[in-house]
Amino acid sequence: MIYPRVALIGLGLIASSMAHAMRAQGLAGEIVGYAKSPETRAVALGLFCDRVTDSAAEAVKGADLVVLAVPVGAMGAIAAEIAPHLAAGATVTDVGSVKQAVVDAVAPNMPKGVHFIPGHPLAGTEYSGPRSGFATLFQNRWWLLTPSPGTDGDALARLRSLLVGMGANVEDMAVDHHDLVLAVVSHTPHLIAYTMVGVADHMRRVSSQEVIKYSASGFRDFTRIAASDPTMWRDVFLTNKDAVLDILGRFTEELFVLQRAIRMGDGDHLHAYFTRTRAIRQGIIEAGQDTAAPDFGRSAPPADKA
Amino acid sequence: MIYPRVALIGLGLIASSMAHAMRAQGLAGEIVGYAKSPETRAVALGLFCDRVTDSAAEAVKGADLVVLAVPVGAMGAIAAEIAPHLAAGATVTDVGSVKQAVVDAVAPNMPKGVHFIPGHPLAGTEYSGPRSGFATLFQNRWWLLTPSPGTDGDALARLRSLLVGMGANVEDMAVDHHDLVLAVVSHTPHLIAYTMVGVADHMRRVSSQEVIKYSASGFRDFTRIAASDPTMWRDVFLTNKDAVLDILGRFTEELFVLQRAIRMGDGDHLHAYFTRTRAIRQGIIEAGQDTAAPDFGRSAPPADKA
Repeated sequence: MIYPRVALIGLGLIASSMAHAMRAQGLAGEIVGYAKSPETRAVALGLFCDRVTDSAAEAVKGADLVVLAVPVGAMGAIAAEIAPHLAAGATVTDVGSVKQAVVDAVAPNMPKGVHFIPGHPLAGTEYSGPRSGFATLFQNRWWLLTPSPGTDGDALARLRSLLVGMGANVEDMAVDHHDLVLAVVSHTPHLIAYTMVGVADHMRRVSSQEVIKYSASGFRDFTRIAASDPTMWRDVFLTNKDAVLDILGRFTEELFVLQRAIRMGDGDHLHAYFTRTRAIRQGIIEAGQDTAAPDFGRSAPPADKA
Repeated sequence: MIYPRVALIGLGLIASSMAHAMRAQGLAGEIVGYAKSPETRAVALGLFCDRVTDSAAEAVKGADLVVLAVPVGAMGAIAAEIAPHLAAGATVTDVGSVKQAVVDAVAPNMPKGVHFIPGHPLAGTEYSGPRSGFATLFQNRWWLLTPSPGTDGDALARLRSLLVGMGANVEDMAVDHHDLVLAVVSHTPHLIAYTMVGVADHMRRVSSQEVIKYSASGFRDFTRIAASDPTMWRDVFLTNKDAVLDILGRFTEELFVLQRAIRMGDGDHLHAYFTRTRAIRQGIIEAGQDTAAPDFGRSAPPADKA
């Protein structure tokens, strides 16, 4: 056991998966949970919490580890609420997809003697809520930590051993670099997927039924991305604004160049561009972040496997 | 057996998968193949063709069904070459992702007594070439046909029975409607994926290694799409120019509205937008075009399963 008592603030996909994983691996003693919604608390109590409380302040009392697993925009208020109730020597971490905004909102609230170590598991599905968690979500996935130079070494090592125990590959990263990397590999792709799905939705001449019926041709991967939790993603874009707008600007420029090549019939430009992008895919397969098995046009499995 | 002799012109992913499927189901007698590259022909002869020829003209002689499985931009020249050698009563079909351009290029070349029925299987993977085919590629996938009002009913029924025999769900569609639907569900999503992968590739501050390392956060689905065959996709964009530019225009408008909401901090707009796009995903799962199983953050499987 790594932490005798863990408090989960917010009980959605990430927190519930953490609870399942900690239980499966015997990493935590008691798991206490809090969520704003009484329904969510009741589900969590039935599925993965030893105890739920009516307030975040109550949940963190006596906890060795506090995990803030709420949307990024809600971190500041929660931090202010729990601060007076945190145990001396406790570690506080979070699982937000943006790190600078979380550091700005949470760090000033943390009392002396409490170790705040921001974190971000690069894992998720398009599902959300307390029923969506599963113990293997973090297996072989990255969990980025953005400790500050003054972070306590023992507290950091202890948190890291919890994350490794849940199956994650842990890496340290600077706060601002994290936000830029994530804008490239996650935030901007999500915004683009949302946009393309929105365009399809608005098309009048192509019925929505046809969009769904023929989705396997490329669009389906976009809809999977665009089905993620709306509140979480709203907060990501509002709080990682600068990096996302930077990458979006580059994306639009690049798209206009390709659009012009299509309009002018410049096949050589298109072919050279599409050839370059192929190499990145190969790198991902070699890095073990995906399988080489054909998947793009895969059939839906039988209903009993879905 | 539905066709005693089938000629495959072009021996890539689609043609090789057709050959494997026809063999597995006993749908064709002899399968004759032609491809420009001698290496491709040699591979095809070893894997799935009964016979390969040194020219397309030679391949189609005496064939009951001729399948044009070359990039859309190459269809016209091939059609002109094979036309004098087609057997009376033969059916010619194609598997191009764009239909108006193929009709314009192929139909004028077809001799009287030959039945030209354009087609498009909505199936594929990010792999290409004669080794990439497999017999189940078309299982439970759509195969769109765009016959003209004058198409011979018997020839159409026979082709349809071949496609159904390979596991496909066959549907008829008007030529121009096909090109618009595909621009929405396939062509524009591919261009956007190519663009986002290109942006990531060009980023200087974020190393290419990090893009690959952390790709599971959304970017990975884009790279899968953007790894598709460059020649095929170049031709798609050059030949379905009008529909793609139309949808791209809508996409850019929509993206600018979201971009502005991010810049202005309009969280309500973002949340409402992201909530709407979720419903489309649900429709796709209900339509059986994908599974509801969490996949987005999935781990790479062990090497022996990849």
